[in-house]
Amino acid sequence: MPPPLAQLTLTALPGIPLVKPGDDLAALILEALDRAELALQTGDVLVLAQKIVSKAEGRQVQLSSVTPSAQAVELADVAHKDSRQVQVVLSESKEVIRHRPGVIVVEHRLGYVCANAGVDHSNVEPPPGAGPDDGWLLMLPEDPDRSAAELRRRFQEASGVHDLGVIINDSHGRAWRTGTVGVALGAAGFPGLLDLRGSPDLFDRPLEVTTVGLADELAAAASLLMGQAGEGRPVIHVRGVPYPLREGNARELIRPREMDLFR
Amino acid sequence: MPPPLAQLTLTALPGIPLVKPGDDLAALILEALDRAELALQTGDVLVLAQKIVSKAEGRQVQLSSVTPSAQAVELADVAHKDSRQVQVVLSESKEVIRHRPGVIVVEHRLGYVCANAGVDHSNVEPPPGAGPDDGWLLMLPEDPDRSAAELRRRFQEASGVHDLGVIINDSHGRAWRTGTVGVALGAAGFPGLLDLRGSPDLFDRPLEVTTVGLADELAAAASLLMGQAGEGRPVIHVRGVPYPLREGNARELIRPREMDLFR
Repeated sequence: MPPPLAQLTLTALPGIPLVKPGDDLAALILEALDRAELALQTGDVLVLAQKIVSKAEGRQVQLSSVTPSAQAVELADVAHKDSRQVQVVLSESKEVIRHRPGVIVVEHRLGYVCANAGVDHSNVEPPPGAGPDDGWLLMLPEDPDRSAAELRRRFQEASGVHDLGVIINDSHGRAWRTGTVGVALGAAGFPGLLDLRGSPDLFDRPLEVTTVGLADELAAAASLLMGQAGEGRPVIHVRGVPYPLREGNARELIRPREMDLFR
Repeated sequence: MPPPLAQLTLTALPGIPLVKPGDDLAALILEALDRAELALQTGDVLVLAQKIVSKAEGRQVQLSSVTPSAQAVELADVAHKDSRQVQVVLSESKEVIRHRPGVIVVEHRLGYVCANAGVDHSNVEPPPGAGPDDGWLLMLPEDPDRSAAELRRRFQEASGVHDLGVIINDSHGRAWRTGTVGVALGAAGFPGLLDLRGSPDLFDRPLEVTTVGLADELAAAASLLMGQAGEGRPVIHVRGVPYPLREGNARELIRPREMDLFR
């Protein structure tokens, strides 16, 4: 009999409801796994869209509650943005790296270099009775690696399976290339970075590419299936990752500033 | 009955042999599809590792045949590299963007910003009788979009299916983040960029993220399953992309220089 085919299967969990502050995300996902008749197995990974994690954690900010600083007013002026939104971006950032009209690229307080510190208003639910333009923003989770680790613990407890991975992904723009791609903001039980130093190539010489952004590759794959335009597929189950899982996190994927030629 | 689950399935085609200059790659892949008992269907995508396309196209260069220019000698000196290798990199490049010891980042003649113009020596087969250190390099395909289009035509003819996508991927390093991720160097019958401008979000407001690097997301997914360390999984079959295919290419993914804040 031929060996089984190497296969990676991503499944969007059905029927995840709109998530509200305080919701028990792990419980919602465990219910959706039941609905999909998917029993968690060793090596499985769950990828969650950042927005549902942020919403469950109550990371919404109402624009009308924000008082912009002088710095925010100045940056908003040159970047053609709402100064209160810029204030929220600045409050989530270590440093503004670049700006031009319509774009502010920062180093987020957690080290990600990204547009608007990940602060977004798409798919953010207006509160009951509010008009669509009342301006609610959603910030990234407080600590996505910690959120991933907590979710993982819940999935481990519920399933009895230890080797499970959790990734929290988001869509980031990039230098040099157009379009956003999914990246890992947080991870647990999954290698952020795969270190292949010392591995041989097909001809037994050392491999040239030595570290792979594995959690980012899986985040991108999941992002493709999630979609962007309100399809409501915020949780992806993954089976068949051809590497052993390990304790890991998404901080591994952040290039230290002093090693970055493009800052 | 519940609607079918949204699922993306990637399958590594088994038994692709080592590829040599002049090999008929389409025929090798069609045989592997048969072996895997996979009949191509509307919407299917095949992702090929750049290296097998480059090898089939005869893009190998022997270091001992290269005479470095004065510019190559100078750059090799500061970048701590072999001047003949640097000559090959320069011959494939429009411009050196950054360098430091061990790293040369260029704009490739096709517009990609990447390390070493994609010129690599891992997994490059030494010629018969040569020692492992005789120094053969592999350049990127002459025109990966054209290569993808030709392969696609062959797959269409053999299968009778029109809506097929082909992506040629490679692993690129990135600004700000560690590790390489798969990106699309060439594409045919698949959107490089997915334009969601005007699409509504979950609450019927315009979506904030408006273009998605769709071919790059799929390239990254395939790269994860291909592996780097000589696993010999250079062709991935993909089923279940949740977007209609269209004529497309990987050039869509290259950010015009004047729109790039990080050059």
